[in-house]
Amino acid sequence: MTAEELFSNIRNKASFLCVGLDTDFNKIPRSLLDSEYPVFEFNKRIVDATHDLAVAYKPNMAFYETLGAAGWMSLEMTVNYIRERYPDMFLIADAKRGDIGNTSRMYAHAFFRNLDFDAITLSPYMGRDSIEPYLEFRNKWSILLGLTSNAGSKDFQMLAAGKNELFYEQVIRNSKEWGTKDNMMFVIGATKAEYLRSVRKIIPDHFLLVPGIGAQGGSLEEVFSTGHNRQCGLLVNVGRSIIYADVTNNFDIMVRQKAIEYRDQMEAMLRHAKLI
Amino acid sequence: MTAEELFSNIRNKASFLCVGLDTDFNKIPRSLLDSEYPVFEFNKRIVDATHDLAVAYKPNMAFYETLGAAGWMSLEMTVNYIRERYPDMFLIADAKRGDIGNTSRMYAHAFFRNLDFDAITLSPYMGRDSIEPYLEFRNKWSILLGLTSNAGSKDFQMLAAGKNELFYEQVIRNSKEWGTKDNMMFVIGATKAEYLRSVRKIIPDHFLLVPGIGAQGGSLEEVFSTGHNRQCGLLVNVGRSIIYADVTNNFDIMVRQKAIEYRDQMEAMLRHAKLI
Repeated sequence: MTAEELFSNIRNKASFLCVGLDTDFNKIPRSLLDSEYPVFEFNKRIVDATHDLAVAYKPNMAFYETLGAAGWMSLEMTVNYIRERYPDMFLIADAKRGDIGNTSRMYAHAFFRNLDFDAITLSPYMGRDSIEPYLEFRNKWSILLGLTSNAGSKDFQMLAAGKNELFYEQVIRNSKEWGTKDNMMFVIGATKAEYLRSVRKIIPDHFLLVPGIGAQGGSLEEVFSTGHNRQCGLLVNVGRSIIYADVTNNFDIMVRQKAIEYRDQMEAMLRHAKLI
Repeated sequence: MTAEELFSNIRNKASFLCVGLDTDFNKIPRSLLDSEYPVFEFNKRIVDATHDLAVAYKPNMAFYETLGAAGWMSLEMTVNYIRERYPDMFLIADAKRGDIGNTSRMYAHAFFRNLDFDAITLSPYMGRDSIEPYLEFRNKWSILLGLTSNAGSKDFQMLAAGKNELFYEQVIRNSKEWGTKDNMMFVIGATKAEYLRSVRKIIPDHFLLVPGIGAQGGSLEEVFSTGHNRQCGLLVNVGRSIIYADVTNNFDIMVRQKAIEYRDQMEAMLRHAKLI
């Protein structure tokens, strides 16, 4: 998917919502446990309940790997289901990989070819040649960790580096040269919205993937007001506070309700900024 | 496994060799392709041919994930085979994960419980709370990326940070406080052997996992002379130049021969340093 297509989806749906499919086997409604692939059944119902309200889905690999081969099957089934049923969806593999070149090529193949993801999250620590193999795939995206939403982001990302810069700023400044605004995004945590202004000075035109809204406590309003650009430029991820909105058999009703609340807020913001 | 047990295995085998099981489906002997799990069959023969010469095996996750659910089955079968047949082996999941706390907990469960790995490689970029969930597992190890063997290591790891230090040195200096020398190791690439002296000033007693010997061109002698400590303190990984030593049906003969060459060099070094 191109940046233009993504922006077009955002406008059509009046939403820049990404739903985090961090599906924890222990938290899904008990009624689903009778099916062969409960995690897939859960995801299917989440997706059916939210597909017109969200522009992206982001399964986190850890939640599938912890179930072994059956987890990979559930992941594969989820990706295929979304691809077939809702072909315009932007699919992000939240994998946070990062390895030497020949290994990165293997991961890229796993997530961009075998599984038809549009994007993958990557750790920048190993540098340019660890990211390049992903950038070689046409219309696929590398989403680099910039400033993350967790407390540990202060340990290294916020260290002083170079002239009056923090380390994460150097990471963004250097790595943006490896690709373009059409194949790279950056993760900036919503809990660090006060830093979005300095991020936007370095990369005014890139899309940002913003986790940390909802369970982690970030403010959607603050993220939008400091972080949006002419193409919206934001994918805001909400995970737990949508997908676990309810644990009854009819959980999809509450899930949809919760997603509508986020979409309505986003629609108002997009209108106010004259993006729709 | 404790550090003492690992050192004891090193002494008994006169070897600090770790064999990298980066098993590429496209590079294994064609004769194996008839079996249901060719990657497992290959690994089994590599392990049987080298188990008395190596103290550790390190499968890289990318090579298994690129095969989907069947890849995970092969990985699981490989781990189980080694655990049952060669219980003293130190098993490293080369995964380079790094995510927020609740996600790290999922990965830790995947690699330390479902798969009975002794250790996992981790990226430090997200800081302390991304690593702590792994450190809670008794007798399991977190192996943090310090200075990696690839060209891209210069992009961020070698940036100036703090007082006369490089960024990777700050990473090691800060993160060593999160655990102990009995549950943390660091990755230091063999291609960067000249930096081992400064690494040893910061962490004289920790084990180091050293990739980059063989196909990547690092020198075993230089690594040992600058990097060893009183408990040896080194696990040197060799991947491609052992496991792809031959592509005939009887590849295990050449594989064993190659591993013997490394072990013999290691034995001489350990003797010279009076560690055996």
